[in-house]
Amino acid sequence: MTSTDDIAAFLAEAFPQTRCRVREVVPMGATVVHAIGPGELRPGGTVSGPVMMTVADVALYVAILGEIGIVPLTVTTSLNVNFLRKPRAHADIVGVCRLLKLGKRLAVGEVTLYSEGSDDPVAHAVGTYAIPPH
Amino acid sequence: MTSTDDIAAFLAEAFPQTRCRVREVVPMGATVVHAIGPGELRPGGTVSGPVMMTVADVALYVAILGEIGIVPLTVTTSLNVNFLRKPRAHADIVGVCRLLKLGKRLAVGEVTLYSEGSDDPVAHAVGTYAIPPH
Amino acid sequence: MTSTDDIAAFLAEAFPQTRCRVREVVPMGATVVHAIGPGELRPGGTVSGPVMMTVADVALYVAILGEIGIVPLTVTTSLNVNFLRKPRAHADIVGVCRLLKLGKRLAVGEVTLYSEGSDDPVAHAVGTYAIPPH
Amino acid sequence: MTSTDDIAAFLAEAFPQTRCRVREVVPMGATVVHAIGPGELRPGGTVSGPVMMTVADVALYVAILGEIGIVPLTVTTSLNVNFLRKPRAHADIVGVCRLLKLGKRLAVGEVTLYSEGSDDPVAHAVGTYAIPPH
Repeated sequence: MTSTDDIAAFLAEAFPQTRCRVREVVPMGATVVHAIGPGELRPGGTVSGPVMMTVADVALYVAILGEIGIVPLTVTTSLNVNFLRKPRAHADIVGVCRLLKLGKRLAVGEVTLYSEGSDDPVAHAVGTYAIPPH
Repeated sequence: MTSTDDIAAFLAEAFPQTRCRVREVVPMGATVVHAIGPGELRPGGTVSGPVMMTVADVALYVAILGEIGIVPLTVTTSLNVNFLRKPRAHADIVGVCRLLKLGKRLAVGEVTLYSEGSDDPVAHAVGTYAIPPH
Repeated sequence: MTSTDDIAAFLAEAFPQTRCRVREVVPMGATVVHAIGPGELRPGGTVSGPVMMTVADVALYVAILGEIGIVPLTVTTSLNVNFLRKPRAHADIVGVCRLLKLGKRLAVGEVTLYSEGSDDPVAHAVGTYAIPPH
Repeated sequence: MTSTDDIAAFLAEAFPQTRCRVREVVPMGATVVHAIGPGELRPGGTVSGPVMMTVADVALYVAILGEIGIVPLTVTTSLNVNFLRKPRAHADIVGVCRLLKLGKRLAVGEVTLYSEGSDDPVAHAVGTYAIPPH
């Protein structure tokens, strides 16, 4: 497994503009956290949908790299997101990923999203990634 | 129907940070365009998945507001995206939305995404929006 | 909560042709089992996709009725299924549902599907149901 | 391209129990029709969700085989269905598929479902198929 620190360093270098950071990498899973500020809100004072989709996407990417190592060209092939509850406006968004399948060329996982400090999920996502030969 | 100019003015005011602009609003549909620069790319020189999800989300939102008027609290309840081809790195992303159902409380639509100037779709999305009483 | 026996009796009466039976109803969840015979297989000796989608759909329905009581007109509004591994040809399919959200008008849940006796999921689904006034 | 008759003959032999038949195969698309009788209805007198998912699945399968020839082990890897309107109880269900991408190993397409004789879609699906070496 790749260490949490190695993946965090890679993310910071490859995606310098991201506000999503790695909290933990575990076997077949990962937790990431996205800072929320005025730039992430939409009318109604709620976190915008694309920010939550970003968290889901990054959580999956980190969980997969945790298993296969730093293979940057691992790319999303599908993402399905259900928005469940209005997130808190001033809490960060936490994404907890669990991989359902890790094949040689394809990985599938699910991500549950929370407002930091709350146990009720604000969104749930399932995504598929294509893994290039490595 | 709400005019293209009215929706464009609303988007610019409500989402001041967005780089996605309205190109056209038609009955039960809309076309939006997202500018692509270094901030929208990911390793491999391709447009990042969350940018494409944003285009899909905005295209649906614009198409719905085109039909029901400016109801800002219309919110995404689900979005399913399939990524089909690598987008061109230096072309804007165009999203063409067609609504499949427009009910009183729920709207469903599909969005096909292209690199500007190409006819091969780079992604396809289906989304559901909840419409508040208005 | 509605009892496992009450829901099993309702399913048998309302869907007399189904080969899917209720194994257990728990708070915010349910487990169902679908018998597999020659009629459920497709070329290659594997369980057909629609059978697995049926299991996911029924597991969600049962989990929701377990919480809200027998409200037959509760209907699926979306279902997203990812097929993960080839199921065993001669094992029943088990669907384990966990509800993610139970609102007054809308419920969302996920279902993990297994071949009976195996711990590796063969498919995973997320579905949304509309609940009528009751 | 494989002819409509060849695919219809293959389906009848490989899936003898199906009530779904091929109406037309066109470049990058297909139309299939599923007979609806008492066995396909659910409480409320509406066509059951799994029947509509079957139509979507078969329409995609037929459209792909129309392009690549009879490759029976082409299998669904994901299917996302949105149910839009209550189908008529006594009308057949028609599924019109359009492929969005046909790669060597992966195909993606969308299917719009109608009650025979109506222009309002009752459901919409997007699916992904894995194509084995052939």
